[in-house]
Amino acid sequence: MRLRHKPWAKEYMEAQEHVFITHPETLKGNWKSEFKNDNPLFIEVGSGKGQFILGMAQQFPDVNFIAIELFESVAVSIVQKLVETPMPNVRVLTVDAKQLVDYFEAGEVDRVYLNFSDPWPKTRHAKRRLTYKTFLATYEAVLPRGGEIHFKTDNRGLFEYSLESMSQYGMYFTDISLDLHANEPADNVRTEYEERFSAMGQPIYRMEAAFRPKI
Amino acid sequence: MRLRHKPWAKEYMEAQEHVFITHPETLKGNWKSEFKNDNPLFIEVGSGKGQFILGMAQQFPDVNFIAIELFESVAVSIVQKLVETPMPNVRVLTVDAKQLVDYFEAGEVDRVYLNFSDPWPKTRHAKRRLTYKTFLATYEAVLPRGGEIHFKTDNRGLFEYSLESMSQYGMYFTDISLDLHANEPADNVRTEYEERFSAMGQPIYRMEAAFRPKI
Repeated sequence: MRLRHKPWAKEYMEAQEHVFITHPETLKGNWKSEFKNDNPLFIEVGSGKGQFILGMAQQFPDVNFIAIELFESVAVSIVQKLVETPMPNVRVLTVDAKQLVDYFEAGEVDRVYLNFSDPWPKTRHAKRRLTYKTFLATYEAVLPRGGEIHFKTDNRGLFEYSLESMSQYGMYFTDISLDLHANEPADNVRTEYEERFSAMGQPIYRMEAAFRPKI
Repeated sequence: MRLRHKPWAKEYMEAQEHVFITHPETLKGNWKSEFKNDNPLFIEVGSGKGQFILGMAQQFPDVNFIAIELFESVAVSIVQKLVETPMPNVRVLTVDAKQLVDYFEAGEVDRVYLNFSDPWPKTRHAKRRLTYKTFLATYEAVLPRGGEIHFKTDNRGLFEYSLESMSQYGMYFTDISLDLHANEPADNVRTEYEERFSAMGQPIYRMEAAFRPKI
């Protein structure tokens, strides 16, 4: 994603208290109180400008969603959209995925979405891929037993790597599509990237993967 | 594969004692004596006309190969090729993959190859797919701990299914390619189908999958 420096982003977001969470560590274990309901909580790691998570939040009003986007200059687009069209079931965080355990209790997150994550194609950067084993351990730590990751990408190398990494970690796959748009499910919410790469004729890869309950 | 009835196939094959094994159950636990060496034993389940396994046997003279092809009218093509060009490290069986444990001791097979297996696309035929869990259990029974299956197909549905089935069985993937010919390894041996479908522009899918050692 092209990053434009937006020096006003931080101040703008911080003014939107009902949407942007400045101190998520204070809500660890208390997200139900923030949303004022007992609905499931789905998070997306790397939300970009938010087309996916806002589409999901509209389609599933009885689910709470948290968009996690490290870059303030990108996350601000999600906040702007939520100011225009308020949605009570969405919050935005600009935190590092490495630190998820600082913001969520074990089992507090019901599902993790990863969409069109940075492929980091060089082998020496494998540790930065969001499906590297240390990230998987972090997701596992905040999900319930048998929790799921739903993952989409147009990047063949990242998908191949992720199938290997997740299966080696001990995860298994419940739903794999190697050409999502060849038979697109009616409830699929497309991301910005997904629209662009599909239009270019590239297959979109998708999987649902579950952690194996530890004995 | 189109099947032509070849009434002469059985008699022809049975006459080639050095190639075609009429009573493989008598060799269970004794394949090393049949090959007269201690080399590893790789089997291919569903060898078709044998282009893959004969190419492999030529490339790896220090490995023993067994081609398993249920249909006599197809397997006879492998036998004919071996009569023309003898290869001491290949044998042919026309047995059902379901019965592998009748022909091989536990750990006697060092690797299983599955290439362009029948996709059986209808859900009610899933049990016939060579990556259905009962077949996986059969391969596991004849492989050593941590044994591997190497699998190629052009069929997207079968590959998706196989990734799910194998990971759910507890296997993990060490090498996945979602477009093998985009970056074809120098030592890749193409099957008849692989040549045909790749020429049609379809991606070839490949994986190496390992059984998780049982504790």
